[in-house]
Order: sequence, then C-alpha cells, then structure tokens
Amino acid sequence: MNEHELQSYARLVLSVGANMQAGQDVTVNAMLEHAPLARALAEEAYAMGARYVDIWYWDPHAKRSRIRHAPNDTLGWTPPWLDARHEYTAEHRSANIGIVGDPEPDLLVEVDPTRAAIDRMPFLASRLTANMSGAVNWTIVPWPTAGWASTAFGEPDVDRLWGYLRAFLRLDQPDPVAAWNEHVERLTTRAAQMNERGFDALHYRRPGTDLTVGLMPDARWSAAEMKTHWGVTFRPNLPTEEIFTAPDRRRADGVIRSTRPLATGGTVVRDLEVSFSGGVVTDVKASTGADIVRGQLEADEGARHLGELALVDGSSPIGKSGVVFFDTLLDENATCHIAYGAGIPTALEDAAALSTEERLARGLNHSKVHTDFMVGSPELEVDGVTRDGDRIPILRDEVWQLGG
Amino acid sequence: MNEHELQSYARLVLSVGANMQAGQDVTVNAMLEHAPLARALAEEAYAMGARYVDIWYWDPHAKRSRIRHAPNDTLGWTPPWLDARHEYTAEHRSANIGIVGDPEPDLLVEVDPTRAAIDRMPFLASRLTANMSGAVNWTIVPWPTAGWASTAFGEPDVDRLWGYLRAFLRLDQPDPVAAWNEHVERLTTRAAQMNERGFDALHYRRPGTDLTVGLMPDARWSAAEMKTHWGVTFRPNLPTEEIFTAPDRRRADGVIRSTRPLATGGTVVRDLEVSFSGGVVTDVKASTGADIVRGQLEADEGARHLGELALVDGSSPIGKSGVVFFDTLLDENATCHIAYGAGIPTALEDAAALSTEERLARGLNHSKVHTDFMVGSPELEVDGVTRDGDRIPILRDEVWQLGG
Repeated sequence: MNEHELQSYARLVLSVGANMQAGQDVTVNAMLEHAPLARALAEEAYAMGARYVDIWYWDPHAKRSRIRHAPNDTLGWTPPWLDARHEYTAEHRSANIGIVGDPEPDLLVEVDPTRAAIDRMPFLASRLTANMSGAVNWTIVPWPTAGWASTAFGEPDVDRLWGYLRAFLRLDQPDPVAAWNEHVERLTTRAAQMNERGFDALHYRRPGTDLTVGLMPDARWSAAEMKTHWGVTFRPNLPTEEIFTAPDRRRADGVIRSTRPLATGGTVVRDLEVSFSGGVVTDVKASTGADIVRGQLEADEGARHLGELALVDGSSPIGKSGVVFFDTLLDENATCHIAYGAGIPTALEDAAALSTEERLARGLNHSKVHTDFMVGSPELEVDGVTRDGDRIPILRDEVWQLGG
Repeated sequence: MNEHELQSYARLVLSVGANMQAGQDVTVNAMLEHAPLARALAEEAYAMGARYVDIWYWDPHAKRSRIRHAPNDTLGWTPPWLDARHEYTAEHRSANIGIVGDPEPDLLVEVDPTRAAIDRMPFLASRLTANMSGAVNWTIVPWPTAGWASTAFGEPDVDRLWGYLRAFLRLDQPDPVAAWNEHVERLTTRAAQMNERGFDALHYRRPGTDLTVGLMPDARWSAAEMKTHWGVTFRPNLPTEEIFTAPDRRRADGVIRSTRPLATGGTVVRDLEVSFSGGVVTDVKASTGADIVRGQLEADEGARHLGELALVDGSSPIGKSGVVFFDTLLDENATCHIAYGAGIPTALEDAAALSTEERLARGLNHSKVHTDFMVGSPELEVDGVTRDGDRIPILRDEVWQLGG
C-alpha cells in the first residue's frame, strides 16, 4: 500500500465511517501491528479538525501471560481507567474507531479456555455501552496484518489481503465516497422493505438448521447506518453488506449451525451448533472452541439470549470472494449471521429513552457480550412469518426475494 | 539478544529495579518499539505474582499530528483517564516501570517548538506525582531501538547498542544481582559521606561555568535507592551511577553550561547554557533546541528553579565508554548533571508528611516538569562549601575526593 492509498483509506474511515465532526475527540482502539492506520487516522483526523486523538494499543501478549499465571479470582478484574476512558467518549460525544485484523489469531490457543473466558480484556462492557449509548459516532474497520493474511491464505501475503480489502472497501472505485453512498442506499431500501412487511418471526432452514426467532412488534431493521441521538449519521462497519435488527430475546426455538469459522478472543470456533428453547441457549456444540463460547454464555443472564439477526445476500463481494477471512467484520458481511448477547438498541426507535428494565420488558436483550456467528449459505432458506402465520420467502439460494 | 537474555533482563528490572512485590499491580509505560521488553516484563511479572500488568504504549506520531494541526488552545489538554491511571498507581501502591530508548528522536524537529512546548504528553504531572508520592516503587530502564542506535552511532546497529547496555546493566556479570548490590553499596557510602559533611552549598567551575547552588540544611543525599513510605526499597534507574539531592530552590547564582546534548520531547538540545540569579533562571541559550527549554520553563513558576543536583565520577562505565547516547537515562549517568523543575522529595526525610506549601517553605521545589541536563567533564571542579565558607574539593578530574 502506498502513502496515497493509506491517506485515502484514513479519510474514508473518518468521513464515510465515523463521520467525524470538527471539534470532536477521536478514540482509536488498535493493536501494535495496526500502527500505520492508527497514525494515518490521527494525522487526517487532526487535519479535519479533531480536538484530541487518543490511540490505545492493546497487547494480547500481556493477556496471555495473565491467563497463564495470575490468580483465578483476579482474572475478571478490569482497569477502571479504561472504563473512565470509554465513559468519557459517551459524555463528551467522541468519535470512536476500532481497528481489527488479528495479527496472531492463535495466540491464546494453548491457554486454559476456562480461565481465558473469565478475562474479558480488552472488550470492556464500558466500551460496548459507550458505542451502544447513541452518544458516540463509531466505526470498526479492517487493517491487513501478516498474521491475519497467514490465517486466511496460509501465507503472510499482506498485499493479497490488502487487494481484497481495497475492493471490499470500494477504494478501487473512481469515487469511493459516491460508491459507498449508492451501496448504503441499496441496503437501506432493503431494510425499509422488511420494516413494511412487519414480520412476526424469521424462520431459518437448511441441513442441520431449523430455527424460528421472534421479532419485536415495534422493532426496526437497519442497514449500514446508525445515528447518534444528537443527529450524526455514521456507518458502524466498513465494509458492510448486511441489514440487521434485534430479535425478541424471549422467542427463539430450534437449532442453528454456523457455516463459517468464528475467531473470538484468540481462539477459532469451528462447526458451532447452538440450540434454543424459549429464547434461551440450551446447548452448545463445536468441533473446536466450544468452551470459549460456553464461557462467554456464562458472562451474565443476557449472554444466553439473542441480540442480533442480520441478512446478507449473494451480491456481497466478500461472500463472492469465496475466502474465509477468520475475522468477524469481514465474514459476517459475507453471509447471514446472528449474535448472542447485547441487543442492538437502535432496533427500538425510543431505546435511548428506555431503562435496561424497560428494554428487557419490550424484548430487547441486555448483556456485556455480543458475539456474531455466520449461518448463511446457498442452502439456507430464510422465510418471514407474518402475524397470520403465512410464510414469505426472503432469501433463496442467496438471492433477495422481496420486491420493491 | 536471545530469549534467555531478555528474560534475565526482565527479571533484573522487576527484582533489582522496581523490586516488585507479589500481589502488586504493575504499570509499564512503553513505546511500540519497546514491545519485546514490555511483553517480557508482563510475562515475568505475572510469573512472580503480579496481580495485573497494564502496558500503555505511547505513540509520538499522534503527538506530531496534534502539534501540526490542533487548535492552539487545545494543546495543553491531557486525557483525564490517564491521570486516573496514574492516581490509581499511587492509591493502590503499584509498581511502575518506564521504558526509554527513543526510536525516533528527531520526530518533532520540524514542528513549531512553541506549540510543541504546550503539549506535555505523555509526561503528565500525575505520573510524576505518583512516582514522587512515595507510594509507588518504580524504575526507568532502557531498551535498544534501531532509531536510538542510529542517533548514537550513525547507523541502526541495535546489537552494538545492546552490547553497551548489557555491560552498563551488569547483565554480562556472572551474578548481575550481586554485582548490583555491590555497586549500590559503593554509591550509598558516597552519599553518606556527603550527608556527614553537611555542606551549605556546591560550587561548579569550568570554562563557561561558574555556579553556586545552595543546599537545604536538612537535605539528604541519596544514591541508587529509594524507599516507598510503606517500606519497599527500589532502584529508580537502571543503570545508575549517581548520587543526588534536591537543592534549595531559592539559592542558585551564576551560569552553567551543558557538556552533552540533551534529548527531550523529540528534540535534541545542544550547547545549553543556563544563567541563574537568586535561584531563578534568568537566561537560556543553546545552539539547537533553546525554545523547547524555554517552553518547559514557562510550564509553571517552579520550572525556573532547580530540583536536583547529581554527582557522577569517572568510574562510570557509561562515561568511560565515551559514547553520547542522546538519552537522559544513560547520559545523566555518564557524568554530573542538574535538573530544573520538580525537587526530588526524598531529599527531605519528612517530605511525605509535608504539603506543597511546606515543602516550598523548606526550599524544596515544586513543578510539573523535571528535566536533567549534563554538566560534568574532566575539567569540572566541584567543591563543597561549608557553613563556615571553607571549600572542600569533591570532584577533580572526575575523581571522587572525599575519604571514608
């Protein structure tokens, strides 16, 4: 990547992604290997009028040492000054940028998974709360690292990975900003179609999967964009190919199988199969990493309920690439996915005015975890179930079925 | 450096340097290029019983972008969560470790020095206050980086730099810990000699230098070791070759010239010459970087007063190497130095019980800055002035003159 591409990417992240406003503080969460992008973001953010740019570099090697050696009853502790940092971003309406692209996805493979599941660093509840508060305009974006390229391709070919990312990010388009605006419009239209239909539930069906998930009567589908309660529209993920909502946390019955590996907390979870009854996870199976998922499900009561449903059709350039990237940001935009844990609050128009108890009473889940896993494939049939019990096809062979 | 050397170094830092106690939190302040040592410290600290190890990586590139672009009236702002982090270390008696070895000493050469002087990051007053509080056992240690090696040698020869550091750190000794204990004993004896004499002032004299600095009647000289108010002895610098005290902030008259370059805040200050009258800096000259020093002296009222006097004789292996390392930790241990800004509180036995006002009334300086610069050379004559006005030679031709 040359200097010009890096600068273009940083500007795209700040304008199309976070939609940073002049005078805002900017928080960047990165790993050491993301420094080129973090530094470019700082330079461009200040040039665009940022007040202060705070880069925080997370080092998973310290986490590994902690899980190896620290007393068990200390592993759940998290530094209060990091909570203070995240609370600051909500109080002062910062722009938050997260960089992903794990340089060492297998770093925690050999540690005790039970102990690993207790240590929640660096995914603090306070960071999730800030991003979900509606006070912060935020975005999560990828950066190609050698370790990530090795995981995806079997060799540390960063240029090849960047070649894919550049296309997914539409940086290869003559006018990336215009290309993004057009793409977002298409996704937004699709979400509006779902909102017009007002389905009561979704039904997922393929070999090994038969799951019905209830929808809240007043829940909205969203796409690509979110809006702070003070009026700034931002794109929380670059790239993005999904439309999504929060389901009714009390209504999920059946079983669903993941269709792609899930990288979480340094461990790759493969062949995940999750069973639900009455909205609650009743069983978890996986060929690798099941304990990491089980550990996350123990985090709190809400962890065992669903927080997100997302639909992606076969036009996704990520899906079309045929590559499994072992990174949620990309893989979740390759195909349909669902998440256990925190419900997306923007699913309820008035969520910002509701207490946690009121949200729960409406069916919106609450948890300190939020983990997406991929369930889409050409075989997956997704139907909308109307309040009368009719079934309307939404996805068949990865083609969007609802008309305008 | 091999894995074994790295591990030995980390253990030396934790045991001989910080003297970390089992159950303590450990704070590591590093730059990205220091990651190998930061990670080794995390691993060894946890193995030695640390409760939580918090690594904070500072990125000076973000600082450069800030100084280039951010509004002038925002440059003095510092993140409150970092103050919270430093305050936590004092409240909870953490062990703090700072890693030095600037990977890009000339990074800020082309920015506006007046604006650079307003931005105090990352040297927050709260960090200095925590370390000076007596609540924290702390140490500052070097790590060889390519950029530092280039500055010292004109080429990025990290192995050569590590060769020097290994010797200065006594890691080439059969038993580095025993070697350190012996060395510290020698320095401690020298400090005791100074305390027995109870000089009223020191007089520095060489071509271009003629400065008399008053000493507080009840001030102590220290060497190599400090002690927390809860009883843990630690070595605040590795390596260390100095004995030091805080002078009377009200008594400094004359002029003193630096004898080695001073690297501070990304700029190299050369040929510094500082004039004093009645304890206050009245003039600053330098062939490069004078504005950085002038900017620091504007930080607060105490910045213009002296906070430290340190004596180093010619037996220092750093001085004997003949290399200028362009890093205060090494260069200050090559030869005699003085510091403007915060007074070393351990100079007063009861400092922990005194308010800032009481310290000032005793003559102990208070400031948010503390900058050492080197004044020693074979030509430098240092005399102790007794309360009767007699002059006792302390250093001649870099040889220690006081007997046992």
